[in-house]
Amino acid sequence: MQNEKNIISQRPLILVANDDGVEARGIRHLATLASRYGDVIIAAPLSPQSGMSSALTVGEPLYINKYPDLSENVKVYSVSGTPVDCVKLAMHAIVPSRPDLILSGINHGSNAAVNNIYSGTMGAAMEGCLIGIPSVGFSLLSHDPEARLDQCDPIICHIIDSVLTKGLPEGLCLNVNFPKEVIPAGVKVVRAAKGYWTEEYADFVTPYGRTSYWLTGRFHNEEPDCPETDEYWLARGYASVVPIRPDQTATDSIDTIKEVLGS
Amino acid sequence: MQNEKNIISQRPLILVANDDGVEARGIRHLATLASRYGDVIIAAPLSPQSGMSSALTVGEPLYINKYPDLSENVKVYSVSGTPVDCVKLAMHAIVPSRPDLILSGINHGSNAAVNNIYSGTMGAAMEGCLIGIPSVGFSLLSHDPEARLDQCDPIICHIIDSVLTKGLPEGLCLNVNFPKEVIPAGVKVVRAAKGYWTEEYADFVTPYGRTSYWLTGRFHNEEPDCPETDEYWLARGYASVVPIRPDQTATDSIDTIKEVLGS
Repeated sequence: MQNEKNIISQRPLILVANDDGVEARGIRHLATLASRYGDVIIAAPLSPQSGMSSALTVGEPLYINKYPDLSENVKVYSVSGTPVDCVKLAMHAIVPSRPDLILSGINHGSNAAVNNIYSGTMGAAMEGCLIGIPSVGFSLLSHDPEARLDQCDPIICHIIDSVLTKGLPEGLCLNVNFPKEVIPAGVKVVRAAKGYWTEEYADFVTPYGRTSYWLTGRFHNEEPDCPETDEYWLARGYASVVPIRPDQTATDSIDTIKEVLGS
Repeated sequence: MQNEKNIISQRPLILVANDDGVEARGIRHLATLASRYGDVIIAAPLSPQSGMSSALTVGEPLYINKYPDLSENVKVYSVSGTPVDCVKLAMHAIVPSRPDLILSGINHGSNAAVNNIYSGTMGAAMEGCLIGIPSVGFSLLSHDPEARLDQCDPIICHIIDSVLTKGLPEGLCLNVNFPKEVIPAGVKVVRAAKGYWTEEYADFVTPYGRTSYWLTGRFHNEEPDCPETDEYWLARGYASVVPIRPDQTATDSIDTIKEVLGS
């Protein structure tokens, strides 16, 4: 289990990132909740970074900005890069000691099912996991800027408390999604639903006659009736928790690939 | 196995993407090799996209540019976005029919070990896998713009031929890395080495007095003596093939996480 006591303060140190940017309601809500359990540092992107996955900034410099503290226990910084940049640079230049926990979110929008792979929210959580710190990403299935966030509070607090107390298995982080507009009926630990996107682009001719393509589309869930999946329970008003392994090696398929390649 | 016969042409259709951009030597070399096996369409980023992982472009339009054909069997397009955008938009607006194979690379630089998670090269290959098309990413462990690429040819051709003939298991793609400056001694199908980055940033004060941070650092291999890993064989002059599963759900850990959360 990965879980080290913070050596400077007696309280745990919690680093909070996101992909919606430092001004987002979701991160301020999450950081305030987290401050019940420890000293909190926000290190969030200067600008929205939705869909940035585990992207990092190469070949140009990053900058840090200090923002007014949210409270005595919540300090706020921005990083001029991606969610992964936020975690990496916070570790290098912002945190006073190694964090006990890294949180990401609350994302405004779903990161359930295959969407996880494109998620900047989960990019930050996976980066925390890769450096050996227990990490959790939170997302709400609503893009409404006024969406209620407090309905998630009891589950978020339970997860923060559980992970701070018990840690997480090495090499794993958590992807938590909340249903929209309801108090979650409970928590289900499940796998990501399989599916794909359809009608992905809207074609649009610019005023200057050039064809442009805007990402859009709908997620098609291939297994809507499968109670082993996150989408199934989210559709029924539950929060979903999916354990995520950043190392994508399919070790169980090495022999199969040897056969395909004859090697 | 995922492998459909192309319905328009009798030759297989092969889509080739990368993260170094449409002008890169690596993609032109790979596409030319691939044209021995089928009709090739390059859909590559307009500008270099290293470190872009599975990022996609949201909230702004994409554009396609046509470039001169490399040959009768290699058509060339650029997309004004990320490697994932290239695959998605090529499927929507460029390819005449569903490709039989998606290739990515040859990347100028390593995507072995944990680097895979940040790789735009593998972002494109994983996107191909997610839409159900056999997909392979190729990378060379050299950033030298004049690096010899032809030493990889026999292995690349063998992999293209094998995957076109036999397909790949559903939900898997391949991450192939080549050692630098040598003819590979052979191919090893292995897992990604575990490790982490150290000394990640160079701090630099701008002429205007502001502290900036440039990504740098070294990868620390935690298991340099483990012959089950890609880094081990790359260091010994072999090419490595790692089977990659884009779905990161750790299904084998669901019960453990239920215990952590008491749910």
